[in-house]
Amino acid sequence: MKTLDAYQAVRFDHDSDELILLDQTLLPNETRFLRLREPETVREAIHVLRVRGAPAIGVAAAYGYLLAAIAAQSHPADRFRADVAAARALLASARPTAVNLFWALDRMDRRFTAAAGLTNDAAVAALREEADAIRDEDTAMYRAIGDHGLSLLRPGMGILTHCNAGQLAASRYGTALAPIYRGQERDSNFRVFADETRPLLQGARLTAFELHAAGVDVTLICDNMAATVMGNGWIDAVLVGCDRVAANGDVANKIGTRGVAIMAKHYGIPFYVLGPTSTIDMATATGRDIVIEERPAAEVTTLWYEKPMAPAGVKAFNPAFDVTDNALVTAIVTEKGVARPPYGESLARLFA
Amino acid sequence: MKTLDAYQAVRFDHDSDELILLDQTLLPNETRFLRLREPETVREAIHVLRVRGAPAIGVAAAYGYLLAAIAAQSHPADRFRADVAAARALLASARPTAVNLFWALDRMDRRFTAAAGLTNDAAVAALREEADAIRDEDTAMYRAIGDHGLSLLRPGMGILTHCNAGQLAASRYGTALAPIYRGQERDSNFRVFADETRPLLQGARLTAFELHAAGVDVTLICDNMAATVMGNGWIDAVLVGCDRVAANGDVANKIGTRGVAIMAKHYGIPFYVLGPTSTIDMATATGRDIVIEERPAAEVTTLWYEKPMAPAGVKAFNPAFDVTDNALVTAIVTEKGVARPPYGESLARLFA
Repeated sequence: MKTLDAYQAVRFDHDSDELILLDQTLLPNETRFLRLREPETVREAIHVLRVRGAPAIGVAAAYGYLLAAIAAQSHPADRFRADVAAARALLASARPTAVNLFWALDRMDRRFTAAAGLTNDAAVAALREEADAIRDEDTAMYRAIGDHGLSLLRPGMGILTHCNAGQLAASRYGTALAPIYRGQERDSNFRVFADETRPLLQGARLTAFELHAAGVDVTLICDNMAATVMGNGWIDAVLVGCDRVAANGDVANKIGTRGVAIMAKHYGIPFYVLGPTSTIDMATATGRDIVIEERPAAEVTTLWYEKPMAPAGVKAFNPAFDVTDNALVTAIVTEKGVARPPYGESLARLFA
Repeated sequence: MKTLDAYQAVRFDHDSDELILLDQTLLPNETRFLRLREPETVREAIHVLRVRGAPAIGVAAAYGYLLAAIAAQSHPADRFRADVAAARALLASARPTAVNLFWALDRMDRRFTAAAGLTNDAAVAALREEADAIRDEDTAMYRAIGDHGLSLLRPGMGILTHCNAGQLAASRYGTALAPIYRGQERDSNFRVFADETRPLLQGARLTAFELHAAGVDVTLICDNMAATVMGNGWIDAVLVGCDRVAANGDVANKIGTRGVAIMAKHYGIPFYVLGPTSTIDMATATGRDIVIEERPAAEVTTLWYEKPMAPAGVKAFNPAFDVTDNALVTAIVTEKGVARPPYGESLARLFA
């Protein structure tokens, strides 16, 4: 069955009380869904990146919290509370730098505290409601990004995307791929080209996987083929996600994004950046203030640390991200709407 | 020992009468030199790409021809002639579409025919002289390309190159890398960045190998990092080879070249194309007349046909070359000198 729902990264089965995760460490060679009942296995799944992407991690952690409460539901109230607190601490240790993980756990904490006077069963019901709300709000936000993005597109368009900013990283839709999925639900018949995105190949492993699984017409290319498909007239718009947007509209995103933006400008193709307003950092004035993480050279010189592709001892430079100048960005699409240049004003208006 | 000579693709040892080839099928993981004494093994080495690149193939074939004559030297004149003719046919079958292979064999034929009245020993001496001449002329041509290219550079410059157009494909120097080697001989201390060049990774496997082996300061990057190193101010010139140049200066070269040219223009960095005049095809009016070879999708979706990197069944587009518009080319460097826009006139002058 080829549908958007068939390959959701994170779902909860309220009949069996199981968290269902697509094990992304096995992609693209194996599609295996994990059915998890214990916070310990949820923690492990987050820790080893079976589930990844800030929104998806937050949703998974919220359901992990719920699973802890369900498991302890029959215990006396104090043990119930103690077990949930222990599981909460366990989940928080899964990825110490994932802000969204803590945000979701904090929100579950607040609901659990508010339910202090209730029976265990009523407290579990409240947590169930809260976890579903986190998921639903997440889905609604990415749906809104998708709809705002879709308003910029016409059916049948050719679209280029880079890296993976799709529903594998979220409860549904994702960011850059959200307009494509919203269009897919309305028979927009986009033709999508996915950059493979060296060195870690998220485009090949994840974007091509999820679009193909959803029945979208997707063609995988190497990063260095983007100029050819643009020059051939096959691309009408570029859609990319973002890791951080500065107050002036400079965009930090996966390495290679900047080159795509330069080529899009050369060919007169609109370059759209999509992300929740939470990625817009008004405290960062420009892209020059964003520190770019450098990762191990081995990611470039060997394939997944297995097979050498370059001579031993050769230097490699491996920046994980780059910054795209705001002058190259046609619009920034958020759940609150579409911002256009000058970004100093239009981004500030999103927070007014 | 780190020198340009230490890793020559093709050499002949006149003391032991052996053709010494660097087995390029083992790069970058193993550096093994083959010492060949029979035309049969020379044929095999050309056939399975142990030696590659039009110039290197021509030189190897010429020495293969010489080896046949040496092996038959003690036979009566008619058997001597018959053995050489048989070996010649064998060598010609190594790569049926390699024009330079036939050019070199034809040239050896003419010398052998001219030596018809001489003793076997004198004929072998003539062939030895001819093979050396082919090698020396090849070296001189690439040295000239290197010197013309070097005239465009200053010591200490940062240089970006794409794919492999170095001495592994020639008797010495190569094309795009020739100015770097000529500069290396004069302590120019260039800092070179090598695009890995997906999908077949010639930049990682070959360019990084040969520059590193020659003691050049080389840093390997993924193709999609070029905009970052350019934007960082690390690149003063781009040097690339060419597979075919049209009469108007449009350049067909390895896929990804066009994107590099667009980014170089964006950053105001000179983009130089280097190649022998034999790659300029005055019968091809523009790049639009050049048919681009598409290669198997598996080159993109699996690494060297071994490990899948993309989901089964996903489409991939895999053009082997692209065409760079002449407006993006700062100069075309040949053994006869440097051509600048308008190329319609400057390229024609090279053949006047």
